[in-house]
Amino acid sequence: MTSPWGHSADLARFYTVTEPQRHPRGYTVYKVTARIIVWRRYSDFKKLHRELWQIHRNAFRHSELFPPFAKGTVFGRFDKTVIEERRQCAEDLLQFSANIPALYNSRQLQDFFKGGVISDGSELIGPAEAY
Amino acid sequence: MTSPWGHSADLARFYTVTEPQRHPRGYTVYKVTARIIVWRRYSDFKKLHRELWQIHRNAFRHSELFPPFAKGTVFGRFDKTVIEERRQCAEDLLQFSANIPALYNSRQLQDFFKGGVISDGSELIGPAEAY
Repeated sequence: MTSPWGHSADLARFYTVTEPQRHPRGYTVYKVTARIIVWRRYSDFKKLHRELWQIHRNAFRHSELFPPFAKGTVFGRFDKTVIEERRQCAEDLLQFSANIPALYNSRQLQDFFKGGVISDGSELIGPAEAY
Repeated sequence: MTSPWGHSADLARFYTVTEPQRHPRGYTVYKVTARIIVWRRYSDFKKLHRELWQIHRNAFRHSELFPPFAKGTVFGRFDKTVIEERRQCAEDLLQFSANIPALYNSRQLQDFFKGGVISDGSELIGPAEAY
């Protein structure tokens, strides 16, 4: 179900309800966790980075704090260091967005997680080639 | 951060990017996990159940498959068995919704996860009393 290829592998949803606790006000609360998994490539992250950067710039009139993204490279894109740099940049971008409502509520970020449904795992309709 | 009470404790977002893998088509894919945590009580789940049941009924013209929800009770709502039954019903409801786009894309389910932001963890503006 969480394999990066094959049918309905692009997006997987999980929900759990755990840890019932007594709230100080007297009722019981439950911890609800929603987990969404998608498999994405460099060009998808690069596109998301550009979109969120624009939203952030329009909202805050400055872009100093916005995390940079790994530049594209013709050679070495399968090198371990290049892959790790891209992974780290992707994670930084998402974690930065997690603190800013204008970003984590954006249609662009929702599309990033929804996109997998549409492609239906078909290998024929893949995203544009990364380089 | 994931405590059920206190400031900005109602909702917490986490993103990770892990497990880079070579796709058969030649590019690298990364596993993106988004984790959203909210703390909710019985009356919140009960409301969500009613809303999703209506959407499901309108979409499919039958409601046999829709999971039932634990009935409210005046006595014993802090009994372990009552709490466990509610937890299980809540989890069943969410997992059932995870397979049906009309439900997991619904505004109602989004509101269920978003609601925490609005209350800002304030104890003064709590949800209506469960019974």
